[in-house]
Amino acid sequence: MRKTIISLFTVLMFFGAKAQDSNNNQLIIQEQGVFAVGGTTVEAEGTYNPDNPKTEGQTLHVDHATVQYQIPSNANKLPLIFWHGFGQTARTWQTTADGREGFQTIFLRKNYPVYLIDQPRRGQGGRSPQETTIPATPNEQYWLGMFRIAKGDDYMPNVQFDKSPETLNQFYRQISPDLGTIDFEVNTDAVSALFDKIGNGVLVTHSHSGGQGWITAIKNQNIKAIVSYEPGSGFVFPQGEAPPTMPSAGGPLEAVSISKEDFLILTKIPIIIYYGDFIPETPSEFYGTDNWRTRLAMAKLFVETINKYGGDAKVVHLPEIGIKGNTHFPMSDLNNKEIAKLMADWLTEKGLDKTSNSETSMNEEIKTLSKAKWQWMADKNVDSLSNLFHEKAKFVHMGGTWGTARELQVIESGSIWYKKADVHNVSVEIFGNTAIVWNEITLLAVVGNNEVSNRFMVTEVYQKNGSDWKLTNLTFSKLM
Amino acid sequence: MRKTIISLFTVLMFFGAKAQDSNNNQLIIQEQGVFAVGGTTVEAEGTYNPDNPKTEGQTLHVDHATVQYQIPSNANKLPLIFWHGFGQTARTWQTTADGREGFQTIFLRKNYPVYLIDQPRRGQGGRSPQETTIPATPNEQYWLGMFRIAKGDDYMPNVQFDKSPETLNQFYRQISPDLGTIDFEVNTDAVSALFDKIGNGVLVTHSHSGGQGWITAIKNQNIKAIVSYEPGSGFVFPQGEAPPTMPSAGGPLEAVSISKEDFLILTKIPIIIYYGDFIPETPSEFYGTDNWRTRLAMAKLFVETINKYGGDAKVVHLPEIGIKGNTHFPMSDLNNKEIAKLMADWLTEKGLDKTSNSETSMNEEIKTLSKAKWQWMADKNVDSLSNLFHEKAKFVHMGGTWGTARELQVIESGSIWYKKADVHNVSVEIFGNTAIVWNEITLLAVVGNNEVSNRFMVTEVYQKNGSDWKLTNLTFSKLM
Repeated sequence: MRKTIISLFTVLMFFGAKAQDSNNNQLIIQEQGVFAVGGTTVEAEGTYNPDNPKTEGQTLHVDHATVQYQIPSNANKLPLIFWHGFGQTARTWQTTADGREGFQTIFLRKNYPVYLIDQPRRGQGGRSPQETTIPATPNEQYWLGMFRIAKGDDYMPNVQFDKSPETLNQFYRQISPDLGTIDFEVNTDAVSALFDKIGNGVLVTHSHSGGQGWITAIKNQNIKAIVSYEPGSGFVFPQGEAPPTMPSAGGPLEAVSISKEDFLILTKIPIIIYYGDFIPETPSEFYGTDNWRTRLAMAKLFVETINKYGGDAKVVHLPEIGIKGNTHFPMSDLNNKEIAKLMADWLTEKGLDKTSNSETSMNEEIKTLSKAKWQWMADKNVDSLSNLFHEKAKFVHMGGTWGTARELQVIESGSIWYKKADVHNVSVEIFGNTAIVWNEITLLAVVGNNEVSNRFMVTEVYQKNGSDWKLTNLTFSKLM
Repeated sequence: MRKTIISLFTVLMFFGAKAQDSNNNQLIIQEQGVFAVGGTTVEAEGTYNPDNPKTEGQTLHVDHATVQYQIPSNANKLPLIFWHGFGQTARTWQTTADGREGFQTIFLRKNYPVYLIDQPRRGQGGRSPQETTIPATPNEQYWLGMFRIAKGDDYMPNVQFDKSPETLNQFYRQISPDLGTIDFEVNTDAVSALFDKIGNGVLVTHSHSGGQGWITAIKNQNIKAIVSYEPGSGFVFPQGEAPPTMPSAGGPLEAVSISKEDFLILTKIPIIIYYGDFIPETPSEFYGTDNWRTRLAMAKLFVETINKYGGDAKVVHLPEIGIKGNTHFPMSDLNNKEIAKLMADWLTEKGLDKTSNSETSMNEEIKTLSKAKWQWMADKNVDSLSNLFHEKAKFVHMGGTWGTARELQVIESGSIWYKKADVHNVSVEIFGNTAIVWNEITLLAVVGNNEVSNRFMVTEVYQKNGSDWKLTNLTFSKLM
């Protein structure tokens, strides 16, 4: 008894492209690495004699930034360049103290190329040209206050910081000493050199790098936007427009005067500044919070001045939009995914998340490729096809299933000539690095000396290989 | 005119699994991050008062290692833990000075989880509990000699080191200062704590970490093997069996005596030691090369002693097996892929490259899943099927193509009952995260009230989603 299955449905259903699977945890990395950028070289006078080595004539390479980067598959055009704050390194943006993903990996998942800086004289950054003494003074509780995580033994109320002892242990061990004097000129030169090397990008600063970020953006117009988390100093104003020094229980905050010409450069790029919670509106006696009162106030003046001259800057005080409990480190707080989403949405709003290879354009690319393939088959163009077919691909026909070598031979010899494929409908879905194409076609083929016409659903599977797609499966499924 | 295509081939060709595509440059990362491990805490006497912060009662977390890690998809069981040498950090194992992939990425591609250490008091590693002065003495040419890259301005003949100025610039900028005294006890404690945290693994040392590696393996039996590149000091011997101090133009090399009991621990794990080129057989006047003459000589005695007590140790002097031109940094030399292959082959030889999820076992997993799926379809088990089917999957039948919701409804309602699939042949190919299954089946189905039997080639596509597989396509292709 051999009957054919009765057709129950005649309507072909086609679906549009959807966002990437959110439940797939894997990262697909196109490229990753580390390099030094910028810096200077000290050279001792005299001539070096390798048979009697002395300091004379030897060099010391100093003051570069060290930068690690990862470029995801299907990357956005503009990378994010993350610059840590005082006492920190690239680790600020990596795994959080409580072991969750930091901005490095969160933004890779959002398809941004990510660059993490260790600034000169910090972490893996360059040495200093001057001899330096690193103190070993216990001072971590002071910083915990300044970071608005805890006042002494008391955590801030409802703080977005995990209270297990191991989290605090990891947080403290993230602190990294100065390998030399902090020198804004040295730092901004190195970060500017980074933008010379990599081209356009978005600079993301934190705390102490905030003020240096404005200066770097003035130095280097490859910086196309700035996201600044809790900048704590170095607010720049045009000469004559700087506000007076603001006193606080944490010390005075001085504005920085620069030329109006330089200042106006900052009006050409979108800027967003975020501050967290526990910042008092009126003077408080606790240095840890009061310090941020003046910083937030001066950030608002900075933004006003930028916008007065036609710029596009904004301060977001998170509690004012209903996001509570954030410390000085929103990027690693318990709600850091929400914080990242805010930033990602802003990047989208400003058109900074463009991609040359979105899922939509991947769909188009695959459709074009699939169509080209029918033409190559019609033309018996085995050169193009052998480049397209994966060496392990299979081809499923009514009469048998075989591999790439055989299929190419079939096409080249003309034992099947795929003379004309009329494509009625094409549907594409992208699954990570894999694209599946469902083609409803009428195929006019010449087999031997017979011209035959059949309706098929053709299932094609493509696998992304670097920047190329390879066909790994082609199944002809005859329709009734 | 509608004819069917004439069957040209009746033999179904099935291929075995092959190694992963070598031309696919993408890395698929299951997890990545950074953490601190080990270390101690200094606590100043007294009580901390947050309203009047002084040193009293504050802490300083010191002497941890900082470890970055990446775990690839389909990872081998045993990770590789890379430990840098003197004046270096994790960067030793990352991008080479001339911009190629280092061991970090090379071994990720070989499916090893990779951990990179910044040891205590180096790079992003922990601070020291003692105040420390970092000198700023130009001394790079001295080290270039010691590393057997160049003697003064003259590169070693046919050295495996790129001679462009930028390569030398990058190489120098990879050097990182000591943030405190180098303390073997502190370092080996931190690395031992790392193995406590991550479990079994293979320790890969370089130069100054070589000697510390033996001590760490004695401290922690989670170290299942050691690969040591150019260990330069700290060769251990049982009490009474240490060779005399070896003088060289680079200074004397002293053996380290330890208890025989401790020494015997090293006989329980496989050990391999590699040395590069330009090491003289007889005393030379140049410190840079002569230093390594004694180090290689003592390494040979160390290995002899290990093996005398039943161990499995080996010294590979690369020029003796025809690999020429290597410096003190074989892992980043121009031929580092060849050097990596040697190491990978040794790991394989010692059974250290086992995987719980090799391509072969993935093949089996997929076959089992595909078979289970036929059973679930026969049983109308839509719970299991809805878990298996990707939400964007498509199902291609002779009578139409539809999505997951419709297919589940078809199965649940019994409008098609896939009563029995006789599987004659199954072929599986793995393409990165995608598996394609070609099933040749005879399907007994009940459609409406009719029992029908057909021969199909069924093309199934599965996508790996975390640790699960989702079916993204199921195409029935009727065979003649």
